[in-house]
Amino acid sequence: MKVTAPADPLIDLVARRAPGYSLPAAFYTSAEVFDLDIKAIFGRHWLFAAAEAELPEPGDYVTVTLGGYSVILVRDDDHHVRAFHNVCRHRGARVLTEDRGSVGNIVCGYHRWTYGMDGALLHAEAQAPGFDPSCFGLRSVHVRALAGLVFICLADEPPADFDEIAPRVEPYLAPHRLATAKVAAQVDLVENANWKLVLENNRECYHCSGHPELSACYFPIYGYTRETVPPTLQPAWDRFVKATENARATYSALRLPYEAIEELDNRATGFRIEREPLDAAGESYTLDGRAACSRLLADFPTPRLGRLAMHTQPNAWFHLLADHAVTFSVIPLAPDRTLVRTTWLVHSDAVEGEDYDVERLTKVWRATNEQDAALVARAHKGIGSPAYVPGPYGPTEYQVEAFVNWYHKRLKVFLAQ
Amino acid sequence: MKVTAPADPLIDLVARRAPGYSLPAAFYTSAEVFDLDIKAIFGRHWLFAAAEAELPEPGDYVTVTLGGYSVILVRDDDHHVRAFHNVCRHRGARVLTEDRGSVGNIVCGYHRWTYGMDGALLHAEAQAPGFDPSCFGLRSVHVRALAGLVFICLADEPPADFDEIAPRVEPYLAPHRLATAKVAAQVDLVENANWKLVLENNRECYHCSGHPELSACYFPIYGYTRETVPPTLQPAWDRFVKATENARATYSALRLPYEAIEELDNRATGFRIEREPLDAAGESYTLDGRAACSRLLADFPTPRLGRLAMHTQPNAWFHLLADHAVTFSVIPLAPDRTLVRTTWLVHSDAVEGEDYDVERLTKVWRATNEQDAALVARAHKGIGSPAYVPGPYGPTEYQVEAFVNWYHKRLKVFLAQ
Amino acid sequence: MKVTAPADPLIDLVARRAPGYSLPAAFYTSAEVFDLDIKAIFGRHWLFAAAEAELPEPGDYVTVTLGGYSVILVRDDDHHVRAFHNVCRHRGARVLTEDRGSVGNIVCGYHRWTYGMDGALLHAEAQAPGFDPSCFGLRSVHVRALAGLVFICLADEPPADFDEIAPRVEPYLAPHRLATAKVAAQVDLVENANWKLVLENNRECYHCSGHPELSACYFPIYGYTRETVPPTLQPAWDRFVKATENARATYSALRLPYEAIEELDNRATGFRIEREPLDAAGESYTLDGRAACSRLLADFPTPRLGRLAMHTQPNAWFHLLADHAVTFSVIPLAPDRTLVRTTWLVHSDAVEGEDYDVERLTKVWRATNEQDAALVARAHKGIGSPAYVPGPYGPTEYQVEAFVNWYHKRLKVFLAQ
Repeated sequence: MKVTAPADPLIDLVARRAPGYSLPAAFYTSAEVFDLDIKAIFGRHWLFAAAEAELPEPGDYVTVTLGGYSVILVRDDDHHVRAFHNVCRHRGARVLTEDRGSVGNIVCGYHRWTYGMDGALLHAEAQAPGFDPSCFGLRSVHVRALAGLVFICLADEPPADFDEIAPRVEPYLAPHRLATAKVAAQVDLVENANWKLVLENNRECYHCSGHPELSACYFPIYGYTRETVPPTLQPAWDRFVKATENARATYSALRLPYEAIEELDNRATGFRIEREPLDAAGESYTLDGRAACSRLLADFPTPRLGRLAMHTQPNAWFHLLADHAVTFSVIPLAPDRTLVRTTWLVHSDAVEGEDYDVERLTKVWRATNEQDAALVARAHKGIGSPAYVPGPYGPTEYQVEAFVNWYHKRLKVFLAQ
Repeated sequence: MKVTAPADPLIDLVARRAPGYSLPAAFYTSAEVFDLDIKAIFGRHWLFAAAEAELPEPGDYVTVTLGGYSVILVRDDDHHVRAFHNVCRHRGARVLTEDRGSVGNIVCGYHRWTYGMDGALLHAEAQAPGFDPSCFGLRSVHVRALAGLVFICLADEPPADFDEIAPRVEPYLAPHRLATAKVAAQVDLVENANWKLVLENNRECYHCSGHPELSACYFPIYGYTRETVPPTLQPAWDRFVKATENARATYSALRLPYEAIEELDNRATGFRIEREPLDAAGESYTLDGRAACSRLLADFPTPRLGRLAMHTQPNAWFHLLADHAVTFSVIPLAPDRTLVRTTWLVHSDAVEGEDYDVERLTKVWRATNEQDAALVARAHKGIGSPAYVPGPYGPTEYQVEAFVNWYHKRLKVFLAQ
Repeated sequence: MKVTAPADPLIDLVARRAPGYSLPAAFYTSAEVFDLDIKAIFGRHWLFAAAEAELPEPGDYVTVTLGGYSVILVRDDDHHVRAFHNVCRHRGARVLTEDRGSVGNIVCGYHRWTYGMDGALLHAEAQAPGFDPSCFGLRSVHVRALAGLVFICLADEPPADFDEIAPRVEPYLAPHRLATAKVAAQVDLVENANWKLVLENNRECYHCSGHPELSACYFPIYGYTRETVPPTLQPAWDRFVKATENARATYSALRLPYEAIEELDNRATGFRIEREPLDAAGESYTLDGRAACSRLLADFPTPRLGRLAMHTQPNAWFHLLADHAVTFSVIPLAPDRTLVRTTWLVHSDAVEGEDYDVERLTKVWRATNEQDAALVARAHKGIGSPAYVPGPYGPTEYQVEAFVNWYHKRLKVFLAQ
């Protein structure tokens, strides 16, 4: 923590940004902007923190770190997930030091201050008369579970629109029953780039020629329309049109919502959701497109449901398939270092080695994540040059621009407060 | 070195501190406060730097680093320990680059400028006519040897009270004859926490349930009084009372001062000293309490002398036993990194493998130091959360509070200058 | 990048410097001065970047990093070396990520934007109508090839005096035919010191008693004159005088310019050049002074040409011999870390293992560089002490002082703009 006040240059910087172009370098490289991002973006918005499947039983917890923050997510005896700052109210020690585990009470390992699952201080040895435990409960964090996905907000007053959005996206998500799924695999990858470059990279497939494994699942027509598709890609286009027709018939028959909702930059909790077909066998993220888990997430009559893709600003994206789901959370570590956590979920009864093979289940996204890490690292390095000038977004990068617009608006809201 | 001036926010920060509570986070985490600590605390107060036993012969030296400072402690031919800044007066090179050694003159390895043991420049090749060597002696550092413990002060004008304190504590220390002891072992441990958390942790035993080895030597009644001791601990209490009676009889017979002097926060050179019994065999810091060195430090008629414990603000604590002594110095490395140097001293005639075994001699404090390192690291991490708020010290943490009070007062004195 | 403006304290600091003395500590240690150095010194002056021999064929490139900058040096089809900022004009990615290689076009690996050898944007997929590629060529960097040595300048308007100096030094350099030489070896060494300490160290041989290998080649009379040479060195002095007479006769016969030109601190592109004999066999930098490569760089009738030594401010020095040449470039990495790149050049027809042995060719300067790295690291450490005060330069350090004068003047010019 710097004890100096945020400087006016930040306000100037935010004012100078040119729409339609990538951001000025300082947004990606300066320590001051990084601190501002933690406060204004990550400290004020709803963040995807974990899948409910990561803490299935009462007493199960995970700790999530973000900047200096550490948050305990714990399942209470009433099966609700609660969230607390992982900071002892005595002398500030980190209460739980493991990434995950299971506890009866929440006990600080320094001087044994003991908290209940509701955060109340139950016991603190050797206190003076007049010590009031009710003043020293763990500080709570806002938390929402949405169809098995746990979101937290570190602000005192979280954006209210989450409660408006939740009932709109829940019908898309709920059929995949993530709340009762189990974790098949989780991979943490530290990428050498600013967190915004990680997000920007995710919000376009203009670079997808660099993803051979992922390209096996995607129709190679990203960014084209019926009018602009080149002759060599006409067969792929026709395949895509046909697959979309078939998929929508299936979705309608199964009452699976599929229409795109795209509200990326016009609200505090920007998001996008859409259900659409995949290429090849169309079932899953595998090299042949076939399902990676024979036990489907729900009683779907077919594994060929393509993907339900959801983004949420500022830090997550999700792919829900018939056979499994993949969640991605983005955690800034430093101006030039970002944690991407990827979690694969399958039906809780699916048996590893029988119903699914972890290597095959995770292959496409592990490879894609590592390729993306290399791409955003080169982006970060290049932007670090004083010779960098913001460049223009093309039409296929409209979601990147929407992310940047959202980010820029949210900074302005914060700085105007 | 920052070329910018110290900012007013530091003064505000110091003013905002609430008595009775742990410090606001910036005191532990900000680079600005760290720089202030180096200047105001470590640059202005008496610091324990080494045991005289580390440089037994004329020409022996040790170098001690602190922030950017490096100080040479060297034993002159008159057997006095002298201290100099380890900076060549030519172009600033570090003169001696080893941690310890033995020299005739002090010769800079860059251009062979040669200094005497008194710091005078004896020789500098190829200088212009008119070059005056007497203007280019090594810059001296204030130094005091106190019963075998070497203290230095980097300030131009050191706190005067050291000379008032020395004759009061010397009668406690002198019987252990540290000036003629030898070093049996020395361990450097880098702890991932602010230096003040290391000191605070040392100044209470509220957390000692986390120290199984140390607990074997301590009566398990820390923080209790005759009135508050719980029934389960009554036997331990009775044992403690009895041991104290016996010990004081021994101390009186041997003319060993034992009464506590506690002047932790009312002077520049805050300190505390007390002689008291240990549990179990009561002789030493071992798992059974028996002496770890069969050759005692002096001609004591019994090894059962318990411990003489001394603290000195800001950076040291000491345990002097009948059979050995342990010194601890704390050196800040960064806001979140601190060096703790532990040195075990035994009689100079004690023979390793015969009179003592290094493993057994050092076991309790090596284990305790590593446990403390883990505790203060979790404290540092927790305090790094924006959700941290200072918490209340309990009655058993009064020495922690005294340390914090001392620190806070000394900052105010510095900032008012 | 810091978004805050450069502070006035820098101007004060520059004003406070005392002539004849080493610089105040902040010049070597502060992050603010380091940023200033990158802007005012490395961003505004001609820098030695590579030997032409590193990119012999059209399409060959090397990338040179400096601070945040990365510069592509590429040989165009017309055999000229061109230089571009290694930053894609799309979203700023580093275009080429390898240190060196060979390309047809310059293609960014992120979204396949494709540039010609002249930097023009040839192709960018999926752009909106109205996108004008001519606005998005790679940004060029000023470049000059001087007798096989490639210099770049990152400023918009480079110092004009380079074009005045080039014809004066080219007659010294050209006979060694570096433009058609080949790279026999290249070693990168990261030294733990400020870049100015690396340069200062290079500009004197007062410390050369620390270089046993190099001392085999140099007459041990550094800093002495006929009047001041001590009796023990009189034989060496006589040897030097005789070798100089013989060498000058050879130089004259071969029409090799040898007179020293020394304009180190009176121009933007400070430099020094001189041809002089070496000790021992006088042919090369080897332990016996014999040539390290039997195939000479040009059709010299003798290998005994001593050395042609050239310095250029701020970042290079060169030794050209009959049999090989060595170039040194200095690249600041951080206030306390500096890259020294050493490149050994031999005739392009020289065959490794027959005409030269890499180990023998590089032995003296590899050893010397590593010794210098240790020396400048101790200088940097010492200067980091608050007890450091600038010390006096002696007569043999006049080139160090000239470097510091040059540096100081160039800062003043920059800060006055």
